Order: sequence, then structure tokens, then C-alpha cells
Amino acid sequence: MTVIDLNSDLGEGFGAWPLGDDAAMLALVTSANLACGFHAGDPATLLDTAGAAVERDVRVGAQVGYRDLAGFGRRFIDMTPRDLTADVIYQIGALDGLARVRGGRVRYVKPHGALYNAVVHHEGQARAVVDAVRAYDPALPVLGLPGSVFLQTAERAGLRAVAEAFADRGYTPAGTLVPRGERGALLTDPDAIAARVLAMVEDGAVTAVDGARIPVAAESVCVHGDTPGAVAMARSVRATLDQAGIGLRPFT
Amino acid sequence: MTVIDLNSDLGEGFGAWPLGDDAAMLALVTSANLACGFHAGDPATLLDTAGAAVERDVRVGAQVGYRDLAGFGRRFIDMTPRDLTADVIYQIGALDGLARVRGGRVRYVKPHGALYNAVVHHEGQARAVVDAVRAYDPALPVLGLPGSVFLQTAERAGLRAVAEAFADRGYTPAGTLVPRGERGALLTDPDAIAARVLAMVEDGAVTAVDGARIPVAAESVCVHGDTPGAVAMARSVRATLDQAGIGLRPFT
Amino acid sequence: MTVIDLNSDLGEGFGAWPLGDDAAMLALVTSANLACGFHAGDPATLLDTAGAAVERDVRVGAQVGYRDLAGFGRRFIDMTPRDLTADVIYQIGALDGLARVRGGRVRYVKPHGALYNAVVHHEGQARAVVDAVRAYDPALPVLGLPGSVFLQTAERAGLRAVAEAFADRGYTPAGTLVPRGERGALLTDPDAIAARVLAMVEDGAVTAVDGARIPVAAESVCVHGDTPGAVAMARSVRATLDQAGIGLRPFT
Amino acid sequence: MTVIDLNSDLGEGFGAWPLGDDAAMLALVTSANLACGFHAGDPATLLDTAGAAVERDVRVGAQVGYRDLAGFGRRFIDMTPRDLTADVIYQIGALDGLARVRGGRVRYVKPHGALYNAVVHHEGQARAVVDAVRAYDPALPVLGLPGSVFLQTAERAGLRAVAEAFADRGYTPAGTLVPRGERGALLTDPDAIAARVLAMVEDGAVTAVDGARIPVAAESVCVHGDTPGAVAMARSVRATLDQAGIGLRPFT
Repeated sequence: MTVIDLNSDLGEGFGAWPLGDDAAMLALVTSANLACGFHAGDPATLLDTAGAAVERDVRVGAQVGYRDLAGFGRRFIDMTPRDLTADVIYQIGALDGLARVRGGRVRYVKPHGALYNAVVHHEGQARAVVDAVRAYDPALPVLGLPGSVFLQTAERAGLRAVAEAFADRGYTPAGTLVPRGERGALLTDPDAIAARVLAMVEDGAVTAVDGARIPVAAESVCVHGDTPGAVAMARSVRATLDQAGIGLRPFT
Repeated sequence: MTVIDLNSDLGEGFGAWPLGDDAAMLALVTSANLACGFHAGDPATLLDTAGAAVERDVRVGAQVGYRDLAGFGRRFIDMTPRDLTADVIYQIGALDGLARVRGGRVRYVKPHGALYNAVVHHEGQARAVVDAVRAYDPALPVLGLPGSVFLQTAERAGLRAVAEAFADRGYTPAGTLVPRGERGALLTDPDAIAARVLAMVEDGAVTAVDGARIPVAAESVCVHGDTPGAVAMARSVRATLDQAGIGLRPFT
Repeated sequence: MTVIDLNSDLGEGFGAWPLGDDAAMLALVTSANLACGFHAGDPATLLDTAGAAVERDVRVGAQVGYRDLAGFGRRFIDMTPRDLTADVIYQIGALDGLARVRGGRVRYVKPHGALYNAVVHHEGQARAVVDAVRAYDPALPVLGLPGSVFLQTAERAGLRAVAEAFADRGYTPAGTLVPRGERGALLTDPDAIAARVLAMVEDGAVTAVDGARIPVAAESVCVHGDTPGAVAMARSVRATLDQAGIGLRPFT
Repeated sequence: MTVIDLNSDLGEGFGAWPLGDDAAMLALVTSANLACGFHAGDPATLLDTAGAAVERDVRVGAQVGYRDLAGFGRRFIDMTPRDLTADVIYQIGALDGLARVRGGRVRYVKPHGALYNAVVHHEGQARAVVDAVRAYDPALPVLGLPGSVFLQTAERAGLRAVAEAFADRGYTPAGTLVPRGERGALLTDPDAIAARVLAMVEDGAVTAVDGARIPVAAESVCVHGDTPGAVAMARSVRATLDQAGIGLRPFT
């Protein structure tokens, strides 16, 4: 049976401010990228979400980000590798503590937001994140963009580098993501998105914005958890995969 | 041989702001209460300090506090037990991650500042901290004030409760600390402090502000690390104990 | 014509986290208590909300709070009067700057959350807030609970002390609010709430939880802006007052 | 009489963490760039420092920075112009409130750290800061690097753009600063620095790292306040200027 992992960013509320419907998403995905408190995620929320993930047998990943609550981690910060490595270890450790208390543990690491984008190209920051993961636990896989400096660096450092595809993002003919703000950057129709994910999994291919058919090799597909239609989209993807006989299975 | 532990609050700088002389103090104490980022302690500083502690065979403890950088954790915050438990787990986990990366690990937990004072009497918060420690690792001892609700609660919960004495704080005839701001609250003469610590260790007694001799039972003595004369004071205490043939040994 | 002011807490989102429907509420109230960044409210949100308030001729008030984003300012913090006074001046100045840029200005000050509750009884913190307002601009009125230490202190200090009533909170026979969590603390039926507000304004009276009719003297009525039914409730109150020929007018 | 302004970054402690000797520096400079709470500066410290500046007739400037306490504002953050403008207005307003309460007011604006460096070239951020200052008060001058995009943008927007020179930084033959970390970036000898400042003021020239004599046109000279030798350096500069009959006068 063909299998795939579905991952989503969860635990991204902060104190009085909720974000997304974590309970609904945890019923649909197999891997939960939980915020770690630097860009989102207060400890009490994370403790609850980690517990809910464990109950549903969803894998917990550390969604590490820049220390930037006001910017939700979506603004590049020109940190030194030394500071970034320490910040990432701190975040993994904090989430791991919360997860262990609820019977789980951090099973992988995925950079968030601007850090995710930075490590596609930024060698110093990519290396800093890889150093942090390897120092914390060299058995932890990392999740990232196929072909990114981050995954390449991780692989050379002996980490398991897991490539992901995006359910609702447009692709350029070169296989990179259409930048947000440009035409075709975001897909919103749940049926179209579900069909697209099915093609990614069954054919290893996706239709780019120019109509070209391009290869996509991914062990996990990211479905967003924080947009208004997030749950409907994830439900559609999940149902389509189920009907096609694709197995949903964590990559870890 | 009689033995005692010396503990001190370290790792309390934050980013560009240093605090105290951690390197000098690590040569003198046997247990280092490292800040965990909520009241002080940025991850890069903590990583370095944890590494230096491990190199000197000084035990690392998690000095957990309120989330209050602006107040250095010295202001009581009326948190719910649920939030406090999660905050404490988060802090222990974060520091434990940093310590493990440097070859150590968190060996005990000591509340900081206003939280330390609150859990002397505040049952809800004392219970919340104890719940956090027990959930994280029931083998972790906690360090606190003899007779405090905190140590009593910890003991009832099956944790090892370690009592500490203070090298440079005045004691009331009832055995509690003279509140800061009152006469006799703080001692500053290194020789007098050293003699006092020696009496605590050898005789299990200390002279209160009214001249009365009162019993003090402590497995560890706290020497402050953040005051101007901190290093001189700790050096004097250490030398006096060495000369008296008292062994310096971590309580863990 | 009888007139009354309606006030509501607005501008309480933070970065990526929205809260409440400020645009809808600004069409219904006459005074907007805008957060000032310490418990909620990022500068860009506040700038927009201040601008929207000015456009609708809604008065802008500074909703000052404890520095506690994680707790949304709902946790008492035992601050020194010196620190609290400085924090309050800072917040008023910051919001005033944003409001002036949009053609308005801060017209009054209302403490938020745990600070609001603290200054009902806490003389040191009440005095600290009053000192801040008087130092910033002695012509600024303050909004608070009738009979509170805060309003008494403000009056003695020469500030205009404005009493408010709560549209959706239960009252004890003694005229204080039923504590949250107790039976009758919160009303949720928009019609009942509207009728209650009308009685407050026309008769200066409200029915307490025990059925007793008690006097309520208020220049402003607070309608909550952050609960799910907030807009419906405010709309009901506004419509009922309009139909009864009550004028809606800012107290400043 | 030839006159010059001396400016320095002050008010950069935060809570329990002091930084520099503000009292000593305020006796030597004519303009104090006070932090505004985003990269450093808690309100109580700023209130005191603003008061001390007013007492000594030292002008208060708003040293606005990125929201980054952990990085002391020394890390570039890729903010949107909208957010940056709002953050700068917020900071100016907050400091202005504190300064007014102490009988002063914000008299000019100078970006701090990484923001200072960013606006030398970054058009979007330079424009955002200029927009903020002009919106707050178009009569406020801005202080910056000669030839920077920031000063050019400010001038085109109708602001008074004031160029500054650096007492203890090396200059390239092109008149830009030698980047930190490179040879000749920082001068430390108080006598050499004082002689250099005198030449800047009297001759409008400075010796570059390659020995070339290059022109420097500045209305203000920045002396650092946060390094160990800061006070000695400033004292030397001040004494040398006094002896040469140069008048020390605020540029505002």
C-alpha cells in the first residue's frame, strides 16, 4: 500500500489568543508541528495540544522559529549561528519536556515561517539549525523543502532529511514555491487541492502554474492549520486519500 | 568527613546584559542554579554556563521563575496552577536540553525570586511547582526553605526535598529570614559570613538577629552570585570550610 | 435628553492574533478603551484602530495593563508603585502618539483586567496609576468602579473620576460585581442585557442577583468587545437605548 | 565660537540589568539618545534618565530600535514598512510621555543598532522611519550617517537631517565606517580619540585607515556610553574640546 504523512502547524495560539482548530486538525493529520513558544505557543496550550496529539497517535514535531511573538516568526532575523543554535536547542528541549510529560516526545524538527524560508538558501542559519538538532539528538529527522540548503546540510551532517510538499501552494516550473503575493501562490478549492495531493502521492508529480507537469518527491504533505478553511481542506485531502486506498502514516 | 553543598544563582544575564561573574563562581560552588529564560538567561548564555558547569563538575539545577524579564522574576504573579505547572515544565525541559548538549543534565529544581517566596506559603503555587517536577522526572530533588509549604508538599508527593540555608541573610528567632529592607536582613562582611556558614555546618546552628542561637538543618548553603561582593564572599566561605576540613560535595 | 456613554475594550489583538470585531464595535460604542501593548495590542493594530475610532468620532481611552502578554493582563502582578507609575506613563504616551498621528488623542485612562480589579482595593497600585495619569495630563479623566479606592484616590488627587456600570455582569445586593465563576456573574441574553442597561440609565438602578433593586450611578456603561456574542449584545443595547430616546454621548 | 554637539546612547539598562554609567555620561554630552523599550530601556529607568537629562539641560532624543530585547536591537529584522512605522511612532510617543512628565520632551530621533545600519541602504525601512517621525512631529530632526538613504529620505520629506560623526570608529577612504570586526574598526585610546574629534570639528576632516585625510561634515559627534572605557573617553573628548575653545551645544 502506498503511504504518505500529513503534517500541519499546530499549537500556535498564545495565552488568550487561540489560533486554528487544533482538535479538528489532530483528527486528520499524522504529524503535528507544534510551536515552541518563540513565535507562538504558550506552555499550557502546548501541554494540552501535545497530550491531544499523543492520544490520537499523532507524532509531535518541534516547529522551531525566531523569537518574535509580535511578528509570528514571519520576519527574517539576522541572528548569529551561535545564538540560533542555542535558541533551537532551547525550543526543542522545552517542547520535548512538555511532550514527555504527556507520554510522547519530540520526534522531528521543522523550522517555522521566516526561518523555514531562510534556511532554503542561508547557509549559516541552515547549519545552525542542523547543529542544534544533531547536538540535541542525532536520531531526530528534520522536515524541509526538497533541494533546500537545509536538507542538504542535514543530510551531510548525518541527519535524516525528510522532504515535504505543500497541498495548497502553487509551484513554479522549476519546482519551487510561487512566492506569496504572486498569482497562483495559494490554492483554496478543497476538491482541487485534494486531487493535487493525490497526484503528488500516486504519480510523484504536480502541475505547475504554467501548466507543466513537474516531479515532486515528498515523504510528507503539509496542510495548513491556521487559515479559515483549513479544516475543510484537510478533511477533503484526507477523504480523497482514504478513498484512493492511500495509507496515512507518520514518516517517523 | 562532614560535607556540605554550596549553591548559587547563575546564568542570569540576558543577551547584551551580563550579570555576576559566573566563571569565578563556578570555581567555588558545587551546585549552580541556572536561570531558565523566563526571568533571566538567554539560551546562548545558558548553553555556555551549562558547559562551564559540566567542565568543573558542578551540578546544574533549574532555577525556574515567573515569566517576567522586566521584573527579574522578583514580583509575585497570581498565576493559575495550570499555567504555572506548564511554565515550570517548559523551563526545566529547555534547560535540560541545553545541559544535555553539553554533557550534563538538570539535576534538581529550585524556584527563583518571588516564586521562591510565594511557595513558602502559597499552597496552590507550591503544588503546581511540585506537580511539574514530578511529571517531568520524579527522581529530581527540589531545593527550598526548611519548613516551607513547598518542601512539605514535595515530600508528600514523593520528591526528595532538600533544605537550604542562606550564607548572607539574617534569621529571626523563629528561624525564618529577616525580610529584605529590615535591619539585619543582609550580611556583607565576608569573614563574618564564612564563620556563620561554618557554624551552620558544624553545629547546625546560627545566631538570629536577637542574638539567640537557633537550629538550622540544611543540606546546602546558598551564596549569592549577583551582588558586587559575591565572589569575595563565596571565596571566603569556601576557604573557611576547606580549612575546617569540611568537604564540599553536591547534594545530588 | 438623557445621555449615556458606552465603552468597550478594543485593540486587543496582537500581531497575527486578532481578537474581537473592532470595526463592528466602533459603530456601536462612544468610547474605545484601546490596549496599549503591555497586555495586548501591537502598534500597527493600535494605529489602525485609533484611526477607525477617530473616523467614527469614538473617543480613544488608554486601557493600561500589566506587562503580561502571556496572561493577557489578567494576573495580578505585585509591582512597586515606582515601576507601575512608569509603566502606565509609558503606555499612555505610546497610545497617545499613535492616536495623535491619526488625528485623535488619548482622552481618558481605564485600567485593564487584573490591574482594574487590583486598584479597587490596593492603595499602592491605585495611587501609582493616579500618579501616572496626573503627571501625564491632569485633565485626563479616569474610568473605574464606583466606590473603588482607585476612583476615590483619583478624585482626591484632582482628577475627574468617572464611574462605570457593566452591561453583562451580575451585581450583589451590596452593589459590587458577582465574582466570575459564581452563579449569576455573567448575563448572556442580549434582550435582558439591553433592558438592564436601559433601567440603569433611566432609573439609576439594577436588579441584583437576589432580586433586590439597588442604585447604580454611572456615566458610562461597559459592553464587552471580546466575547463571541459581543457585537450582538452591543447592538441590542444600542438599539434599545436609541428607541427609548436615550442619547449616546462620550463622557469626555 | 565653533560649536559641536556630543551625543551618546543612554537609558539602555533593562530592569535588574544596568548598562553603562548614565549619570557620568550626562555630565559630558549635550544630547542623550534614550532607548525606548524595544531593544532596551524599561520605563522606570527611562523616567529617571530623562529626568536626569532635563536637570543637566541635556537634550533627549528617541533612540528607536527593533523589538528585540534578546538581541539588543543589533540584529536586522525584515519588518514591513507598515509595522516599522507603527513601532517607531509607539516608541517615540512612549519616551515623549516619560520625558514630558519630567519637564522635557523628545527633541530628535536616532535609529539604534541594526536599524541604524539598515536605513543606511534599505529604502523601505528608511522611508518607514521617516514616515513615523513626520507623522509624529514634522519639526523633529533625525540623526544619522552622512550620505545615508535615511538622511536623504528625511530631507526630501521635509525633516531636518542631522549628520553625525563617530569619535571612536575607523573610517574608510570613502568616508564610510570600517565594519566592526575588521582591523581599525574601533579606536580605544582616549587621547587619540580626543585629538581626532578636535580635528573633525576644527578642520572638518578625519584620517582614514589608509592614512588619507578625508572630509567629515557633522553637526554632532557620537561617543559611546556602553563600553568599559566609555566615560574616560567622553571625558577626554570633552576636555580637549573645552581647552580648544570649542563650544558644546545641542544641535536642537
